[in-house]
Amino acid sequence: MSEESVKYLLPESEIPTHWINLLPDLPGEPLPPLHPGTLQPAGPDDLAPLFPMALIMQEVSPEPEIEIPEPVREAYKLWRPSPLYRARRLERELDTPAHIYYKYEGVSPAGSHKPNTAVAQAYENAQAGIHKLATETGAGQWGSALAFACSLFGLQSEVFMVGSSYDQKPYRRSMMETWGATVHRSPSELTAAGRANAEHPTGSLGIAISEAVEVAAGRKDTNYSLGSVLNHVCLHQTVIGQEAAAQMAIAGEQPDVVIGCVGGGSNFAGLAFPFVRDVLRGGTQMRFLAAEPAACPTLTRGAYRYDFGDTAGLTPLMPMFTLGHDFVPPPMHAGGLRYHGDAPMLCGLVRAGLVEARAYGQNDVFTAAVRFARNEGIIPGPEPAHAIRAVFDEAEAAREAGEERVILFGLSGHGNFDLAAYDAFFAGRLEDPEFSEADMEAALERLPEAPAIA
Amino acid sequence: MSEESVKYLLPESEIPTHWINLLPDLPGEPLPPLHPGTLQPAGPDDLAPLFPMALIMQEVSPEPEIEIPEPVREAYKLWRPSPLYRARRLERELDTPAHIYYKYEGVSPAGSHKPNTAVAQAYENAQAGIHKLATETGAGQWGSALAFACSLFGLQSEVFMVGSSYDQKPYRRSMMETWGATVHRSPSELTAAGRANAEHPTGSLGIAISEAVEVAAGRKDTNYSLGSVLNHVCLHQTVIGQEAAAQMAIAGEQPDVVIGCVGGGSNFAGLAFPFVRDVLRGGTQMRFLAAEPAACPTLTRGAYRYDFGDTAGLTPLMPMFTLGHDFVPPPMHAGGLRYHGDAPMLCGLVRAGLVEARAYGQNDVFTAAVRFARNEGIIPGPEPAHAIRAVFDEAEAAREAGEERVILFGLSGHGNFDLAAYDAFFAGRLEDPEFSEADMEAALERLPEAPAIA
Repeated sequence: MSEESVKYLLPESEIPTHWINLLPDLPGEPLPPLHPGTLQPAGPDDLAPLFPMALIMQEVSPEPEIEIPEPVREAYKLWRPSPLYRARRLERELDTPAHIYYKYEGVSPAGSHKPNTAVAQAYENAQAGIHKLATETGAGQWGSALAFACSLFGLQSEVFMVGSSYDQKPYRRSMMETWGATVHRSPSELTAAGRANAEHPTGSLGIAISEAVEVAAGRKDTNYSLGSVLNHVCLHQTVIGQEAAAQMAIAGEQPDVVIGCVGGGSNFAGLAFPFVRDVLRGGTQMRFLAAEPAACPTLTRGAYRYDFGDTAGLTPLMPMFTLGHDFVPPPMHAGGLRYHGDAPMLCGLVRAGLVEARAYGQNDVFTAAVRFARNEGIIPGPEPAHAIRAVFDEAEAAREAGEERVILFGLSGHGNFDLAAYDAFFAGRLEDPEFSEADMEAALERLPEAPAIA
Repeated sequence: MSEESVKYLLPESEIPTHWINLLPDLPGEPLPPLHPGTLQPAGPDDLAPLFPMALIMQEVSPEPEIEIPEPVREAYKLWRPSPLYRARRLERELDTPAHIYYKYEGVSPAGSHKPNTAVAQAYENAQAGIHKLATETGAGQWGSALAFACSLFGLQSEVFMVGSSYDQKPYRRSMMETWGATVHRSPSELTAAGRANAEHPTGSLGIAISEAVEVAAGRKDTNYSLGSVLNHVCLHQTVIGQEAAAQMAIAGEQPDVVIGCVGGGSNFAGLAFPFVRDVLRGGTQMRFLAAEPAACPTLTRGAYRYDFGDTAGLTPLMPMFTLGHDFVPPPMHAGGLRYHGDAPMLCGLVRAGLVEARAYGQNDVFTAAVRFARNEGIIPGPEPAHAIRAVFDEAEAAREAGEERVILFGLSGHGNFDLAAYDAFFAGRLEDPEFSEADMEAALERLPEAPAIA
């Protein structure tokens, strides 16, 4: 036992030199986003008021690989390559013949995978002469990551934080301020969208997005930044899977199944897409499993339709599994998974049957998270705890089959800022809201008129 | 610039195989602890009701190296070896020719260096057939580390948490509970010491220690555990400095000055003692600098005397710099540095002139911490922020001298649970309490009658 490795590390020289763009490898023609006003395919120019052209070109690039700018790789060195762990203690706890590996992104200063794209976005905006980035944040992970990234590239950052989170999570706000961000409680008095929603004092992600977009659209030196869903965000996250593949090779194994949680999809994409490409190119066989909350079961219960990316209907329409753009998920502690849709690229893979999806309830998820923490040490964030719950299923299946299956999952962040949720779990105060048929029927009625997807 | 290393990593095989015991290399005869009742030298048997014999033997060992048990090295693999960073961005920010390195212990599951000794202590207690460890915690770092360690070795843990911290830091409590600990608000109704102090509802570290010691002394299956000050705790922490020395060798440099913050002294000892031994053995020249808070300036202002380790006067007396065992440091946010004394081994080195000490005020320290975070990403705990403040002094001295000096400092933990302190700093609400001459005179009058130290 003493010579058994627990961690697989890579030197800085092994930080990937390119991001992997899955777009050209996907079967069929990519479905374009639609302009929210005309419902016609939206082009790069439609996005130019909000994003620098370098990111827009990444969003639609037909190239299978895109070089990572050297200053971004330099910034990655502050925490990358992240470690790959073999969960030997958890394997013994679960009495499974499965080999369980996890790629841990909580080592970033902000504590999650989000900085992988935040530094790339901050860099390209700085290159384009932008002085400030505006964004929204719910649970606080994305706002923290962007504040950190802006501090590295000399940009200002302005974060509209959902009112209820602003009140409940003052430490996430302090974290953003430590990195120099200006944080506004949303709805604010600073924007028309905020003033129009003064009667919703607790705010919503939809309102916060509208405020950030309004600020970015109205100022020449300010752009908008999004932390998930879009192609270029998934692209930036592929450093995770590329490193994991190199680390699994050192361990001398290849995953039979790759598991990640899904909110907007960028964490899952980051870990899985490099492996998905191998499968699409016929190099190997592998299963992919997306874990989502039963309270917001986009991939397992949503309709595959064109829908807006935001609640207010200001963004382009995207082809995706959706619970309806105005669906407000019930309060739950995996704040990062409360999104009505998912990344179009990921949705296409689910539609094509390449990625399976499963939904889990909160209490079930926290039970798994605590068992993980007591064996592996790290206290997981509530979002990746959904992936852990799915790992438990797969580990049990391996035991029942008597097979030494190799499981790789993404531990996308630590739970240091989510201990109130653990508290609620221990006190028996966690609820298990379920998405109902009636919810879905109501959502379908409110979906925008748009071309059906074949 | 692109090929400049930022991190120096070691594989798991490079986790040290031995702890370094500085005791036999220290000049002169070691000064024994004194029994609190008789004031005569205390022997191993005096400690047996609280600690397992293996740890007591480590406390008094004349061996220069002590082998690390294999199960402890296995547990270390969950986060060790920790990374050594070259602070290239900070060097540019400070416009200094100095090369600044930091050894980062915040990668442990509990977020600080404390688990290095917690897992060693939990292991030896489990080997001795003990079922439960009782301890106290103030800011929560030590209680978290011990709860984590106990979860790995199948021990129960019972933590008496200072009442004011229990109320102000519910997330540290939740963290301990996630790892299975039972956490009591101190003073509690569970002990005579607690009941006797019911009129001090906010509690103190002294009361909490008394409660934990009382619980441990009264139950055969329960021992007590201490997170700093004692020789065996400093011993366990030397994995830090040994790894740092190996990583500095990879970087091709040797420190001119080693800097750490000091509360009880174990963090400083862990980083510095392996280097101190090289100096004591004549192999090299190096400066050592201990950074402490101006509000609790033990090393810079204290008297070198025999004093109790705890407020109530229940522990053996130790030879150390002390502000008086009943000195209650003013409220400040570096909770881990609020101790009236320091590790006897470290105090001896300060006395001998081998280690310099400097004291810094809170606002000065947080100004340095924020500048560090905006360049290096990691938000430091308030305790190691004292070391960062000292680094700024040394970097400026190097610039003024025009010398390419090599600075190594210990970043003993992250500040994820200390953001209320950053909040207070940004709001201008941080005070800079100063230790006064009158405080010292009063403390000296209350020191116990004990042999003077030559």
